[in-house]
Amino acid sequence: MVEEFFDALEVQNPEKREKNLLSRLAKHIQHAKENAPYFKKLFKEIEPKEITCRASLAKLPITRKSELVNLQFKGEPLGGLNAVPLQNLLHIFQSPGPTYDAEGIGTDWWGTARALFAAGFRKNDIVHNAFSYHFTPAGVMLERGAHALGCAVFPAGVGNTDLQIQAIHDIKSSAYVGTPTFLSIILKRARELGKDISSIKKACVGGEGLPNSLRQIIENHGIHCSQIYASADLGNIAFETAARDGLVVDERLLIEIVQPGTGNPVLDGQVGEVVATLFCPEYPLIRFATGDLSTVLPGESPCGRTNLRLAGWMGRADQTTKMKGMFIHPQQIAKIISLHSEIQKARLVITKNENTDTMVLNFEAHISSKKLAQDIGLSIQTICKLKGLAKWVEPGSLPNDGKVIDDQREF
Amino acid sequence: MVEEFFDALEVQNPEKREKNLLSRLAKHIQHAKENAPYFKKLFKEIEPKEITCRASLAKLPITRKSELVNLQFKGEPLGGLNAVPLQNLLHIFQSPGPTYDAEGIGTDWWGTARALFAAGFRKNDIVHNAFSYHFTPAGVMLERGAHALGCAVFPAGVGNTDLQIQAIHDIKSSAYVGTPTFLSIILKRARELGKDISSIKKACVGGEGLPNSLRQIIENHGIHCSQIYASADLGNIAFETAARDGLVVDERLLIEIVQPGTGNPVLDGQVGEVVATLFCPEYPLIRFATGDLSTVLPGESPCGRTNLRLAGWMGRADQTTKMKGMFIHPQQIAKIISLHSEIQKARLVITKNENTDTMVLNFEAHISSKKLAQDIGLSIQTICKLKGLAKWVEPGSLPNDGKVIDDQREF
Repeated sequence: MVEEFFDALEVQNPEKREKNLLSRLAKHIQHAKENAPYFKKLFKEIEPKEITCRASLAKLPITRKSELVNLQFKGEPLGGLNAVPLQNLLHIFQSPGPTYDAEGIGTDWWGTARALFAAGFRKNDIVHNAFSYHFTPAGVMLERGAHALGCAVFPAGVGNTDLQIQAIHDIKSSAYVGTPTFLSIILKRARELGKDISSIKKACVGGEGLPNSLRQIIENHGIHCSQIYASADLGNIAFETAARDGLVVDERLLIEIVQPGTGNPVLDGQVGEVVATLFCPEYPLIRFATGDLSTVLPGESPCGRTNLRLAGWMGRADQTTKMKGMFIHPQQIAKIISLHSEIQKARLVITKNENTDTMVLNFEAHISSKKLAQDIGLSIQTICKLKGLAKWVEPGSLPNDGKVIDDQREF
Repeated sequence: MVEEFFDALEVQNPEKREKNLLSRLAKHIQHAKENAPYFKKLFKEIEPKEITCRASLAKLPITRKSELVNLQFKGEPLGGLNAVPLQNLLHIFQSPGPTYDAEGIGTDWWGTARALFAAGFRKNDIVHNAFSYHFTPAGVMLERGAHALGCAVFPAGVGNTDLQIQAIHDIKSSAYVGTPTFLSIILKRARELGKDISSIKKACVGGEGLPNSLRQIIENHGIHCSQIYASADLGNIAFETAARDGLVVDERLLIEIVQPGTGNPVLDGQVGEVVATLFCPEYPLIRFATGDLSTVLPGESPCGRTNLRLAGWMGRADQTTKMKGMFIHPQQIAKIISLHSEIQKARLVITKNENTDTMVLNFEAHISSKKLAQDIGLSIQTICKLKGLAKWVEPGSLPNDGKVIDDQREF
């Protein structure tokens, strides 16, 4: 099969893409600073035209998804991250928290058409959309992409499994979007009801992970099943292609992987938090930390798309926990590391032993030194206001899983 | 206050409008006959170019909303009423039955912007949309109109009252669309929660009737509350204006009021079934009987809009009932009337007396004649396969409420 592409952007020279993305940074940051009250304050000391490379970008402060609920609490529904008034948006959404999100004006503002295309969706498909259209944006997000491709859409939303099956059967829908779990429920229930829904030949699934076993159940029904990794704020972040070798990053954003709790890019191949800069004028998210862990795969996708590839979702980046009534944040671990230049990598392990919580900071360093471990122990106490041991480990021995706080207690 | 208009169509010379609508009939019927399998069959004997006036239109067969479920059962999801393939539609919807409906391509395919404008909605309003987006079209129908006017929309859907109140409070939504009952629930609950939602200043409500008492409850909260009369197949049929004197018909369709069970237009001012011809190329509903009773008000709206005005929803036109195990349809009553030219108007009254069901056809005629009553009694038996009495009543004495079958039994 010859791979088809959504557009020429997907197969451009990756250096050209990188250069192009970086060249847009200064103007975009300037725009955000001038029009979005939050960024005006955040970037007060920043000279936008100096942001011309990844290194200078990495010096900008991070905005965490988990902070949105507090930012928005102050009376500005979008926390002042919006560069146009609410009234000029197409949609405003509410997610649990509550936090609010925006959709700006455009045919495919969320960029999902590219992901659906890679999943095999084409003009004339009839798409059964089992994401909710209410409160949160997932339903409309995927619908925009389907409409941009020229598909018809059945807006199913969540629930009413039997009626959804009836609709697929009657309309002969050819494609599904929604969570993979719900698709597997639909397939099982349709069999019980004796309803033929074999018209569905492709699926683009998201909203949760896709274990191989689940993918297999779906594909055993003759459905080609691909993943989209998207969020309520950024839209399409990355998507699977026929190559099934990582998720190719969307062309609308610039992705960094940072050490959780910091804004510092990890070394190539390390697991860290996905941070995105979205080139969208209405809602210019700049260094927006998603709270998701992932890593960049080396090289290019065998499908021919040349953009960065993510390994997929590898866990939650926000590892904040509590010990003896005190919060411990990844930022504190990052602070401790920054105080000791000998530390290459570190991981706080919290365990429970006979009802006593204990924490140990395992650190990689070239030389094992009792003095260093003692000094780090003092830093732990200063920064965390809690006693903790520091323990040297062999460089390279800590797992590459993005974990900075490993809370092993069972509750 | 000077009335503003959505466009010049609203205030055009009514004769010009009538002439324009009638002049489009022939081509539209030709289009339906050529492209929609259902109309090809239905209009087999019809010469489209002969349909140039209301009298010739009235000779075309009616298509009843209640027939859709059977028409669609035959494997064509839209019963062949669609003039383009399903794949070329924007949305396909499912309503209980199930029956399926379509949305064609266009900015405001349902024509709701005009109704929202008359309700006071303008660019920069933030609209809280409490109609469902799932399965049925109400949510998207009103959203399209709001977007066409340049409003932002919060897609609330149904349920989650407290979270909806939170969203209105946080976003400071300025306008509401949904059912009036749900708006009154929101207002009551917001007061209980102590949440200020006084940002809402206008509402366009539909999906059910609006008793004066309910309107008063809503308007006591400082909300200007207007009605839209819309359906899942036709979209905007008619809408209230600041004049609050009937509902002005939308410009996208041609309305007739017919005697229930027939395709015969009633005399001016009589109550009957609302029948619409929708000038939409993708889904050309021609003489589509809505199942709703209404009547045309005389004269023009004081607001300055010149189109026909409906009195609002006056009941269900489909009065089919059952007696002694046999269905009795309005069509049968119409048939009986057609067999006796003396009958001006008639109404079948069914009552229960000591567990015996009795039916009497009250008929208006210039002369009271025992012979006529006997003859009509025989016709009742022939047509309905049930015994029934015929009883003369004074001309003008039957109520003008569109009822052809008045089933007074209590079950």
